[in-house]
Amino acid sequence: MGKGGKGTEAAPAIDAGEGEEENMAAWLVAKNTLKIMPFKLPPRFAVGICGSDVHYLREMRIAHFVVKEPMVIGHECAGVIEEVGTGVTHLSVGDHVALEPGISCWRCRHCKGGRYNLCDDMKFFATPPVHGSLANQIVHPADLCFKLPDGVSLEEGAMCEPLSVGVHACRRAGVGPETGVLVMGAGPIGLVSLLAAKAFGAPRVVVVDVDPHRLSVASSLGADATVEVSTAAADVAGEVDRIKAAMGGEIDVSLDCAGFEKTVATALEATRPGGRVCLVGLGHNEMTVPLTSAAIREVDVVGIFRYKDTWPLCIEFLRSGKVDVKPLITHRFGFSQQDVEEAFEVSARGRDAIKVMFNL
Amino acid sequence: MGKGGKGTEAAPAIDAGEGEEENMAAWLVAKNTLKIMPFKLPPRFAVGICGSDVHYLREMRIAHFVVKEPMVIGHECAGVIEEVGTGVTHLSVGDHVALEPGISCWRCRHCKGGRYNLCDDMKFFATPPVHGSLANQIVHPADLCFKLPDGVSLEEGAMCEPLSVGVHACRRAGVGPETGVLVMGAGPIGLVSLLAAKAFGAPRVVVVDVDPHRLSVASSLGADATVEVSTAAADVAGEVDRIKAAMGGEIDVSLDCAGFEKTVATALEATRPGGRVCLVGLGHNEMTVPLTSAAIREVDVVGIFRYKDTWPLCIEFLRSGKVDVKPLITHRFGFSQQDVEEAFEVSARGRDAIKVMFNL
Amino acid sequence: MGKGGKGTEAAPAIDAGEGEEENMAAWLVAKNTLKIMPFKLPPRFAVGICGSDVHYLREMRIAHFVVKEPMVIGHECAGVIEEVGTGVTHLSVGDHVALEPGISCWRCRHCKGGRYNLCDDMKFFATPPVHGSLANQIVHPADLCFKLPDGVSLEEGAMCEPLSVGVHACRRAGVGPETGVLVMGAGPIGLVSLLAAKAFGAPRVVVVDVDPHRLSVASSLGADATVEVSTAAADVAGEVDRIKAAMGGEIDVSLDCAGFEKTVATALEATRPGGRVCLVGLGHNEMTVPLTSAAIREVDVVGIFRYKDTWPLCIEFLRSGKVDVKPLITHRFGFSQQDVEEAFEVSARGRDAIKVMFNL
Amino acid sequence: MGKGGKGTEAAPAIDAGEGEEENMAAWLVAKNTLKIMPFKLPPRFAVGICGSDVHYLREMRIAHFVVKEPMVIGHECAGVIEEVGTGVTHLSVGDHVALEPGISCWRCRHCKGGRYNLCDDMKFFATPPVHGSLANQIVHPADLCFKLPDGVSLEEGAMCEPLSVGVHACRRAGVGPETGVLVMGAGPIGLVSLLAAKAFGAPRVVVVDVDPHRLSVASSLGADATVEVSTAAADVAGEVDRIKAAMGGEIDVSLDCAGFEKTVATALEATRPGGRVCLVGLGHNEMTVPLTSAAIREVDVVGIFRYKDTWPLCIEFLRSGKVDVKPLITHRFGFSQQDVEEAFEVSARGRDAIKVMFNL
Repeated sequence: MGKGGKGTEAAPAIDAGEGEEENMAAWLVAKNTLKIMPFKLPPRFAVGICGSDVHYLREMRIAHFVVKEPMVIGHECAGVIEEVGTGVTHLSVGDHVALEPGISCWRCRHCKGGRYNLCDDMKFFATPPVHGSLANQIVHPADLCFKLPDGVSLEEGAMCEPLSVGVHACRRAGVGPETGVLVMGAGPIGLVSLLAAKAFGAPRVVVVDVDPHRLSVASSLGADATVEVSTAAADVAGEVDRIKAAMGGEIDVSLDCAGFEKTVATALEATRPGGRVCLVGLGHNEMTVPLTSAAIREVDVVGIFRYKDTWPLCIEFLRSGKVDVKPLITHRFGFSQQDVEEAFEVSARGRDAIKVMFNL
Repeated sequence: MGKGGKGTEAAPAIDAGEGEEENMAAWLVAKNTLKIMPFKLPPRFAVGICGSDVHYLREMRIAHFVVKEPMVIGHECAGVIEEVGTGVTHLSVGDHVALEPGISCWRCRHCKGGRYNLCDDMKFFATPPVHGSLANQIVHPADLCFKLPDGVSLEEGAMCEPLSVGVHACRRAGVGPETGVLVMGAGPIGLVSLLAAKAFGAPRVVVVDVDPHRLSVASSLGADATVEVSTAAADVAGEVDRIKAAMGGEIDVSLDCAGFEKTVATALEATRPGGRVCLVGLGHNEMTVPLTSAAIREVDVVGIFRYKDTWPLCIEFLRSGKVDVKPLITHRFGFSQQDVEEAFEVSARGRDAIKVMFNL
Repeated sequence: MGKGGKGTEAAPAIDAGEGEEENMAAWLVAKNTLKIMPFKLPPRFAVGICGSDVHYLREMRIAHFVVKEPMVIGHECAGVIEEVGTGVTHLSVGDHVALEPGISCWRCRHCKGGRYNLCDDMKFFATPPVHGSLANQIVHPADLCFKLPDGVSLEEGAMCEPLSVGVHACRRAGVGPETGVLVMGAGPIGLVSLLAAKAFGAPRVVVVDVDPHRLSVASSLGADATVEVSTAAADVAGEVDRIKAAMGGEIDVSLDCAGFEKTVATALEATRPGGRVCLVGLGHNEMTVPLTSAAIREVDVVGIFRYKDTWPLCIEFLRSGKVDVKPLITHRFGFSQQDVEEAFEVSARGRDAIKVMFNL
Repeated sequence: MGKGGKGTEAAPAIDAGEGEEENMAAWLVAKNTLKIMPFKLPPRFAVGICGSDVHYLREMRIAHFVVKEPMVIGHECAGVIEEVGTGVTHLSVGDHVALEPGISCWRCRHCKGGRYNLCDDMKFFATPPVHGSLANQIVHPADLCFKLPDGVSLEEGAMCEPLSVGVHACRRAGVGPETGVLVMGAGPIGLVSLLAAKAFGAPRVVVVDVDPHRLSVASSLGADATVEVSTAAADVAGEVDRIKAAMGGEIDVSLDCAGFEKTVATALEATRPGGRVCLVGLGHNEMTVPLTSAAIREVDVVGIFRYKDTWPLCIEFLRSGKVDVKPLITHRFGFSQQDVEEAFEVSARGRDAIKVMFNL
């Protein structure tokens, strides 16, 4: 994995027609159907399953991205370099690298202005028609392959991808040593947001969810307080009071990692005047929320689209131990047809599964 | 008007009990009932009527601010200094000054952090129980009295208040020579936002309204293009297309000055990825809007609460001619009981009345 | 100490004429001469000695601030509240508080714009003609008295003042989890800057000094690497190489805490393109430095003047243990005439003395 | 000119060996020696002479950039498209385009972070060993070719390059409708900085120079006031007073476009606390300047290296008439050997020549 060529565009090293013996990959071929290619090489990678992978498997689409041809799935990955392109000097065969999955155009205003995640021409692993990275061998631009230091494993490297979501959210929301942070939702995205917020120095992070088990995980990962809430819309005001009490001070930043009208409403109401709400986990397009109430208190509402320039920081967080993602990896699977099917089932079931990883 | 004492808090120079002969003021005494005090001094001021004044007159409340005692109304004002407090060196008797209406605490985090408009302890003209400025003589802190240069009239000075809303919106939204601006709504707030956006250097401002007369006013004030729309929610997508065509480029910033679900939705959908929507005119608290669609394009949504530190810039805009507020002043009245009643009626009726001014 | 009145200006509770028995204070009465007033109350405060206190003692002036009348000295302080003014609700008698020493005007552009430290009318402890806080009883505005939580001692509270310098420098320089930081100088200001940089999340801080003892203190306080340098100007290039090697990556931010031409030159040359140099410790006004070389790499050069709005963050750092200032307090003295004289001598001598505290 | 290929790197369409008949270009072949290649095509371009071109001609080097092989000179240019590469959709043969001269790597942290001008691997017209653009036909990446609208001539298009310096300086310095601007130096860079500052909305720009003729040009271009100064270092304090008087208010931003110790010192001393000095014209590396005095007033000192992402804004300024660069073009020459030699002589002589353009 990670055969980087300077400026080379991403492309799986094989296609269905030929060479399938040379590479192992999980192809999404129809609704609920993944086909694993046989392989020769022993696997030297780690790939995590994301909610969007599960969604493609079940629906063959996300929004206007529709899977029309068989597509290699997966985008959270790290691996060992097999070969480097001419002119690549910062990487060598045998290096362990984590891969940033999106290749942008570098010609549009967003790319030139430092917000390349907004690029219209982004080619992103496993976003149709671009193949993903749940494969034993892939080709990827060298500048999107980030060397893992000793002591950071491949599966931790693969976790840079979900962690990047939390990091980008914290950057956009301005999290730092002076911001009390509310995290709405303790699913995988809520948990990486919690980890990122603590690593950005947030003095106090309160995590809110409907599920006591998830909240106990949040506590074990460093949440300073947790608040169990209901799904009833009517309870917002009272829950906001309990959340503020749990913070024991002002909520400067809220990260909504759930995407429900109620969680957004709670975030908007709980955040102090002049604070910021970041919409991290996105739900239905139309939302009925108390936006005016936030606006009049100058609570800014910002969203995130993926991430930009986050891998070096994520790797530094992992290296220094400021972030420990290992407790998030709850399940590991090998790469047989049966394993892959079971892995996706476990991931889809959720609850006790936080992150399912192919790493055996 | 404008008897400034360094640090003195605002208070009408008279109360109902005594001295009513010494001052002229419009007291809001009951629903739809204003009582004008007799006076001795010839009036030397200009005061505009704001929509909030009309709202208090009709409802005796705005949100949780309830008029319980007779209250002097008005907060858009300029006047001539009668007397200055000890230690005031930058103002002299006879100076013409425009008045910033809010007195903040200067002890809270917002005041200390440069966002004093968010101060919880703000005392603001005609926000109960604080008296307003529709009076011939008032006392106000000297640092909130801004000297008008030669060539800027009292009624232009009074217009600094509504213009400040546009200025604060432009600052919060980051309007400048690189931002194409969409203004939703061509009422008084939409028009001052248009004027402010042009003065901030916006290369192109498109104004949208349902009323062709208002749009023609916007055009005459400098709108680069106008788009007439309907009130039907179903039309958003098509109208967004027409608005983008009218811009002839990307919409970097949208200022929603109407506060309807449809106008907010239009602003959210029309703004380019990475752009900014500022909610200037606020409507119902709960809104059903495509917030997720904005978030995923990293379109930031920010609101405004009044303004801060805007008077010097407004006065500079008026002095230099970058902003001409005179066309906004459509009606002028004197200060008899009958005049005042008629002025509020004209203002409430809207349409051809943009700004009604007491300045005779 | 800390008799806070809402809006009351700072003034020692006694003056030389009367009541001297009621308060204990260190008056600077002539060059090298401090006179201690007798006292009745047992001291309930902690006050540190700053280099500027020593400078006033020796020279009776700093820049254009000249001591013309006997002046109470000292400005790093915390104490116990004896009395609160009417309207003060967030503090009670017996509370332990740390004091921010400067009272600004809240009427100028700097105060209104959130940069009150630049206020022209600042009244600051022990900056002539304003009295300082090395006294048993002082009166100070309540909003500048910050309650210390349990577990934070008075002398730690007094350390909020020097720590604030480091905090303000880190804010101005943009220190965070993504910035490798170089600290030039390991004196008291260098050390608090080191502590602040680590608390702001700097992944790696390199400290440079000419004195190996100081560097060993820096190491014990958390410096990731130290570099011993010479005072010879000719060595800059080679030392920059050694400093970069010690960082093992790019230097994003340099904090010059020494104020010599050579240290500024080193900071300018060592910082990466697009980075930032903050001048924290200030030396001679005229400096011969490679400013063009920095400018062409877009290395920004910013200075600091005192601090603003830092006490809450400093106290949070102390409460959470992110910053431990106790190792900086190397000497403690009581408050007899003899003790005070000796304390200033020890502080002036430097070297093994980092912070000298009156706290017995 | 402007044969853009998507992602194609810049390269003159001919080399000395073959095809020299097909292209006309000014080759710098030795000190003070330019050799013009014969040509077939009629010239359809405009190219300006920059001070750096003159410097290369005289010294064969600038800093560590040394001309070792014959090199096409020039980097301020616009031309007509002869041919477009596959995949280029936004440009067509016959379009008039202005060319941004630098091609960055898009793989380093600076490129990814939106500061591509700091890229270490930048390939820039006429910076050895990269050929320049004073040629009748060149190949350049399509995303660096910006279409000129009707009404903007080729020579105005070529002026986007020097104007970009002023624009980048204004952006870095934060010039806007609230900043009084001081421009030190009324040479070509000072004049484009003046034009840019006015276009960014600066309410008042004061220009300072030693040459009354240059100051009269500045006045005719829109300077609100000018101040004639001496070259004597001793005069700084008095001149700062005169400059402040000419501003009639605070100097928020100073743009030093001269690069002398005295001009930098004047800028540092004249700028208000909390303001910003931008070093635009760079001189000797070592400078003896009152840096501490600036630092203690929190006057930030920032430099610029070329520019980034400025062409669209420059073209918009030209299109709208906010900037008129035509008065800056004082001399025009054709492209014979004799013309080119004379053009460089006129440009080098300076004084009445502001911008010398090949455009006949």
